[in-house]
Amino acid sequence: MTDHLNQQSRSDCAALDAADPLAHLREQFDLPEGVNYLDGNSLGVLPAATAARVQAVVKHEWGTGLIRSWNDAGWINLPQRVGDKIGRLIGAGPGEVLAADSTSLNLYKVLSAAIDLARGQDPSRKVIVSERSNFPTDLYIAQSLAQQHGMTLELVQAHEVDARLQARDVAVLMLTQVNYRSGRMFDMAAVTEAAHAAGTLTIWDLAHSAGAVPVDLTGAKADFAIGCGYKYLNGGPGAPAFVWVNPAHVNRGSQPLSGWLGHAAPFRFDTGYTPAAGITRYQCGTPSAMTMAALECGVDTLLAAEPLGGMRALRAKSLALSELFIAQVRERLAHHPLSLATPEDTAVRGSQVSLGCPEGGYAVMQALIARGVIGDFRAGDGTAAEPDLLRFGFTPLYTRFVDVHDAVTALVQVLDSGEWREARFNQKAAVT
Amino acid sequence: MTDHLNQQSRSDCAALDAADPLAHLREQFDLPEGVNYLDGNSLGVLPAATAARVQAVVKHEWGTGLIRSWNDAGWINLPQRVGDKIGRLIGAGPGEVLAADSTSLNLYKVLSAAIDLARGQDPSRKVIVSERSNFPTDLYIAQSLAQQHGMTLELVQAHEVDARLQARDVAVLMLTQVNYRSGRMFDMAAVTEAAHAAGTLTIWDLAHSAGAVPVDLTGAKADFAIGCGYKYLNGGPGAPAFVWVNPAHVNRGSQPLSGWLGHAAPFRFDTGYTPAAGITRYQCGTPSAMTMAALECGVDTLLAAEPLGGMRALRAKSLALSELFIAQVRERLAHHPLSLATPEDTAVRGSQVSLGCPEGGYAVMQALIARGVIGDFRAGDGTAAEPDLLRFGFTPLYTRFVDVHDAVTALVQVLDSGEWREARFNQKAAVT
Repeated sequence: MTDHLNQQSRSDCAALDAADPLAHLREQFDLPEGVNYLDGNSLGVLPAATAARVQAVVKHEWGTGLIRSWNDAGWINLPQRVGDKIGRLIGAGPGEVLAADSTSLNLYKVLSAAIDLARGQDPSRKVIVSERSNFPTDLYIAQSLAQQHGMTLELVQAHEVDARLQARDVAVLMLTQVNYRSGRMFDMAAVTEAAHAAGTLTIWDLAHSAGAVPVDLTGAKADFAIGCGYKYLNGGPGAPAFVWVNPAHVNRGSQPLSGWLGHAAPFRFDTGYTPAAGITRYQCGTPSAMTMAALECGVDTLLAAEPLGGMRALRAKSLALSELFIAQVRERLAHHPLSLATPEDTAVRGSQVSLGCPEGGYAVMQALIARGVIGDFRAGDGTAAEPDLLRFGFTPLYTRFVDVHDAVTALVQVLDSGEWREARFNQKAAVT
Repeated sequence: MTDHLNQQSRSDCAALDAADPLAHLREQFDLPEGVNYLDGNSLGVLPAATAARVQAVVKHEWGTGLIRSWNDAGWINLPQRVGDKIGRLIGAGPGEVLAADSTSLNLYKVLSAAIDLARGQDPSRKVIVSERSNFPTDLYIAQSLAQQHGMTLELVQAHEVDARLQARDVAVLMLTQVNYRSGRMFDMAAVTEAAHAAGTLTIWDLAHSAGAVPVDLTGAKADFAIGCGYKYLNGGPGAPAFVWVNPAHVNRGSQPLSGWLGHAAPFRFDTGYTPAAGITRYQCGTPSAMTMAALECGVDTLLAAEPLGGMRALRAKSLALSELFIAQVRERLAHHPLSLATPEDTAVRGSQVSLGCPEGGYAVMQALIARGVIGDFRAGDGTAAEPDLLRFGFTPLYTRFVDVHDAVTALVQVLDSGEWREARFNQKAAVT
């Protein structure tokens, strides 16, 4: 399928951009000059609307409206309003998604609820299963809860998940749909069906899915989901995350982070906790008006694609971009020992491509960044002292076909010249 | 002590402002025209520096710097940097305070840790004690943890705390230093000493203390503390909260919200959780750069008072303001059946004054707000269907003596005219 792509010249790529019906969506963003940004899977770019919106929240809603803005500017409803918009991207209905807290905290909430639900049905199930190369924060939260509940967290390889479920002792299967290192994607519907057949509840972390690939939580009959606001949703650094619970479960039990805004009537100031109906019981403390507003601007950039085919159209472009990248790397970098760490099969590929890079992922990426191409790096198996993966995110809202071509050109230059040898590894140099 | 204050005319008050060495601190804020804001104990006002700082975070650090700003703009260190500044206001040393998450979430962390610590020393202690009129979110979080740990949450009146400790079955005493309704303040050092003598650990919620009254966590030998960023710290709606743990305890055990940024080496992406040394282990997910920056601007407005005597000087002005208010209410509103719900004794009064108002706190406050005087309302005993307390916060950074006089004038007008009868109660009309 990629044979024709490896011979694309830069002008061929420019022609692809000219013919791209989604191309104008890029105009929604304030992109810096001289930067070819392929790291939207780590931190999305700034929407053009965000600065003015945040400024209005700060100067007018806070500065002038003061306490009155909780009602008058609708601050109090932002978690639900922004949640509803995110729901349109992930196959969730209105009132089912809440924007709140961080991904880690939302995982704590849903995993607690899932454990309660699963153990309520079958107390003998004492295992939580996840993927060994899942993003660490998910594993850390699961370790904490497994320990609290006298359960075991078992980590398996992706291909071992199905078999592991068959022992029928797994209470909860907790997976990130798209792997942060490899970009490999689980078939949510198939895995959920297999889990349910084995009597296991599912939690899906959509950190690298929401806004990147079509997600249908309702169709997949998923049980719980969480995700990140600052990657493909373009909500800004440390944006609120989101949480979804299947309506069949949402009013069964409560979650332990029982802050006042998850109460059925928070402004009654009751002494005792009564959880709100629906997803609002997954709210905890007071939300930040400015980060909620920024997240809404980010989500709006994706909703702008709805008249053009929405996430399906974005997905098609995403795959066209990653196919082009892979073909170009194979053609133009055949003389370097790079390896493809992302699935060849587009059906199980997210919106990123990772390359194994024996020269060292950190050093090569620093040299690329010096040339204005920003991706990032990760350790391939999570144990290497130095990262050995180059990671490139393709965000179809703003990545162009020429950007892919230019990124490969820069990689050729970096590897051919050996200029990457100048860079030194710095442990603290990237955030998820 | 207040005898001379009840006869102060507005021009006497203006003279007090003219002689006030802290008066110019008000210039640090963007205060709206025509508003007499006495609700800084619920949501602090906008510092003049904040809008530009947040705009710089959005446009330059995020928009241009993109992922590089985690290091280049120091985003990754904001929780510690802002925490250190908060520490200067509450008697905590450098490296001891973290700005993070919400008050509710930080309480969940420290109460979990306190329970582990207390039960590790004496497993027979199964009681958490708090005050019945503590802010509900604290009680809700404590209920959740008490249930998880097979413990009991017992709620007592403030004056019953000492006696309750004597049974020596209390694992943790969890108090909000300044009561959100009455403004009554506990003597932190004395209560902590009594708790320790009874073998009980202490958690102090500083929501209505930090930036309002001098706090000396180190001197009081407190065990754990948390607090709010959006009240007296002027961090903005839903600002990050903060958490402090006594250095003697901080590395003993860990807290359950074990997100990746609490890890000893988060960028090593280890599969297993190893808590960071120090307060950083109380960090969970990825912090928001824009809310951390806004909180820093807010805290800076308080640190600006350091050369003028800092929190002690602010405290003296705060008490002068509340003394003036009480005296003026007594003098000018003697013909209305208002009652003082805040302690007469300044030693146990925070930075607010609450008045019992049989006419209905909500309706009277709406009429005051219509006249440009913004305070808020609460239910006096937490069970009334309608609030019966008027609450006025005195924030010495920006409240003037004339503001106190004008507020009483407006209250006289509202009560004398009966215009408050127009207002209808609305449950959702205020946020803590």
